[in-house]
Amino acid sequence: MSLVVQKYGGSSLSDADSIKRVARRIVDTRKAGNQVCVVVSAMGDTTDDLLDLADAVSPAPPERELDMLLTAGERISMALVAMAIANLGDRARSFTGSQAGVITEDVHGKARIIDVTPGRIVEALDAGDIVIVAGFQGVSQNTKEITTLGRGGSDTTAVALAAALKADVCEIYTDVDGIFTADPRIVPTAHKIDRITNEEMQEMAASGAKVLMLRCVEYARRFGVPIHVRSSFSHHEGTWVIDNEGEVSVEDPIIAGVAHDRSEAKITMVGLKDEPGKAAQVFQIIAQEQINVDMIVQNVSALDTNRTDISFTLPKTDGQLAVQALQAHRAEIGFDTLQFDDQVGKLSLIGSGMRSHPGVSATLFQALADAGINIEMISSSEIRVSVVTRDDQLDDAVRAVHSAFGLDSADGEAVVYGGSGR
Amino acid sequence: MSLVVQKYGGSSLSDADSIKRVARRIVDTRKAGNQVCVVVSAMGDTTDDLLDLADAVSPAPPERELDMLLTAGERISMALVAMAIANLGDRARSFTGSQAGVITEDVHGKARIIDVTPGRIVEALDAGDIVIVAGFQGVSQNTKEITTLGRGGSDTTAVALAAALKADVCEIYTDVDGIFTADPRIVPTAHKIDRITNEEMQEMAASGAKVLMLRCVEYARRFGVPIHVRSSFSHHEGTWVIDNEGEVSVEDPIIAGVAHDRSEAKITMVGLKDEPGKAAQVFQIIAQEQINVDMIVQNVSALDTNRTDISFTLPKTDGQLAVQALQAHRAEIGFDTLQFDDQVGKLSLIGSGMRSHPGVSATLFQALADAGINIEMISSSEIRVSVVTRDDQLDDAVRAVHSAFGLDSADGEAVVYGGSGR
Repeated sequence: MSLVVQKYGGSSLSDADSIKRVARRIVDTRKAGNQVCVVVSAMGDTTDDLLDLADAVSPAPPERELDMLLTAGERISMALVAMAIANLGDRARSFTGSQAGVITEDVHGKARIIDVTPGRIVEALDAGDIVIVAGFQGVSQNTKEITTLGRGGSDTTAVALAAALKADVCEIYTDVDGIFTADPRIVPTAHKIDRITNEEMQEMAASGAKVLMLRCVEYARRFGVPIHVRSSFSHHEGTWVIDNEGEVSVEDPIIAGVAHDRSEAKITMVGLKDEPGKAAQVFQIIAQEQINVDMIVQNVSALDTNRTDISFTLPKTDGQLAVQALQAHRAEIGFDTLQFDDQVGKLSLIGSGMRSHPGVSATLFQALADAGINIEMISSSEIRVSVVTRDDQLDDAVRAVHSAFGLDSADGEAVVYGGSGR
Repeated sequence: MSLVVQKYGGSSLSDADSIKRVARRIVDTRKAGNQVCVVVSAMGDTTDDLLDLADAVSPAPPERELDMLLTAGERISMALVAMAIANLGDRARSFTGSQAGVITEDVHGKARIIDVTPGRIVEALDAGDIVIVAGFQGVSQNTKEITTLGRGGSDTTAVALAAALKADVCEIYTDVDGIFTADPRIVPTAHKIDRITNEEMQEMAASGAKVLMLRCVEYARRFGVPIHVRSSFSHHEGTWVIDNEGEVSVEDPIIAGVAHDRSEAKITMVGLKDEPGKAAQVFQIIAQEQINVDMIVQNVSALDTNRTDISFTLPKTDGQLAVQALQAHRAEIGFDTLQFDDQVGKLSLIGSGMRSHPGVSATLFQALADAGINIEMISSSEIRVSVVTRDDQLDDAVRAVHSAFGLDSADGEAVVYGGSGR
């Protein structure tokens, strides 16, 4: 008997009919001879509705109370899913994050899971019941307060439970068929990826791919949890996110996919004094504001060899805060001008095959040049190359790169570098 | 410093503006130098909306899951009230029933409170915080499941917390000014009662008065908790429900008020054999169906001295179940006919002064006779007389009795038997 953890997002639980459809799928999984533990998000627009209510009573609600409020959303959906299962004649029991033993840090709004002690879950599964768990929520280790895990938290709940229960698979149900080689809304020829390593998936998520959140992928990678991302609206196989580091076959394609991100802005500091410790000084000031920086590029200024320029990207929402902090320290840092630019986009090409194929970056840059797209920043890791472009050129850039690496394919096969069947 | 427990019902928490208004009232109470513990119901229609959702996924949802679902309602309102208080610059912390230490029986849907262990509440109050507690809910003693208390459960939560915290007063906020001598929708001259004994209030609640539920009044009486029922839409004094048994002053009026109830039906068993144990046999059958019987009247039949008739009232919703159970045992019980009548109403006259005024029943019957209303059943306790009439004569009956006992009063004074100033 296998143990299957399934996670259903809000778009799969938008109304009573969707809930009944999900219940049918869960019961089918149980009838196929599996133990089933299901993690649910809040229904459709519930979280937004609750946030609207919070906003109507207080412009800056205390985070503790916001967590208390938002966790009502999953409580509603989990009870309804359990009821719908009971109505199909099967036994189901729902549990809050706290009841399920999801232990988190003592912070609100974006707590990390520290431990999972699923005693009540195991007991219910052993009794033959289907278990429904509220995603996105837990209880803090020391203060015993209700906490939430932040964006994508339900996926993380599912993976954490799968790890703690030693589940055979963690199925993440969503409204698309799986992970695609690029966003199909931008690249109509993008195709579903059948298998992707969790290392690649981690880079995809970090680079703006929306289907799985970074924290969830990190958790799955650390505990070796196989993830199957698939649609709750079909029975097609989705994308398997698996741990096969060091086992990349020569048959595998170099490139997994192209991710893009429009959530970042760029700050450029012009005419910094070029001396040891200058970068450290700048990024200590940024860090004091709790701002996460993504790409950093430093160049020697062409005009003055004692001067240098530093550019970095950061979340658009932190832009004004960063500019204010740097301006406030202008005298002690010493720079000529500060440029803030929120009209940028980032494209990332990801593939673990890059390690052994040095030509990838050159092909990428040539594809962009051929499409007339200027590159403003470049950064790379072992299995990723990212470039910053003008925001309004980003879609063209994604299409050009997707095409240049042979990912366009009417029959869903990537052809470049001999890759196939991923 | 006084400790005040306040309870706000759904009609006082219908939207964001109502919540802000309630928050202002709570903060004012705190600023007046009191420690404040607030119990809230779910917002306006939330509970009905959740029940509609449950009904849409399952015609007969498991009670455990229904409790899980419905408790989301108070979780939402308590977090919003806490946020609204924080927005006024005061500190508030919300707690679920479980966190507040509301321990109940191991049943769902209508669990009774067994114990209250308000450690976290006391800690928060001692820290100077305003405490908000979810009403209507608790955690079961042995199974540690989330439970609900049934209708009027939030009032009971408030009284139970007031008892456990040894609060100076339990203020029940509602959308009317207090307890009235009769339902003002039926008797326009009904007036607000300033003080009522909890013994009288208990009879009023048991007789159909809707403002306070019976269980809550019983709890308050047992633990000596003074209740102040008042409107959240004004600052008028409401009705004090107080413990003054044995202290009734000669100045006090005989009659507290007139209650009515349309929720019951009447069953009459005609031609029962008049022998010892017959009534026991009948009501054992009814009890096996978990049906609560209210009034029971037994008469010797005029036609046959070896035969008797028994009539009793019970909730309309249990009517068919009772009829089926009795018909199924017809042979062993032995009776001629069974009559089921759901077109009845019950009027109750309540007042602790009745004990020493034997003329009350006679005055009541005369008033009904003068109004041309036939009495079908009579039952009485020390401080109450109840009669069953035709449903469509009940309103007239209430007005006639209210008037006959001098409770009509433009200036809000009851004048009969020299009573005044209650």
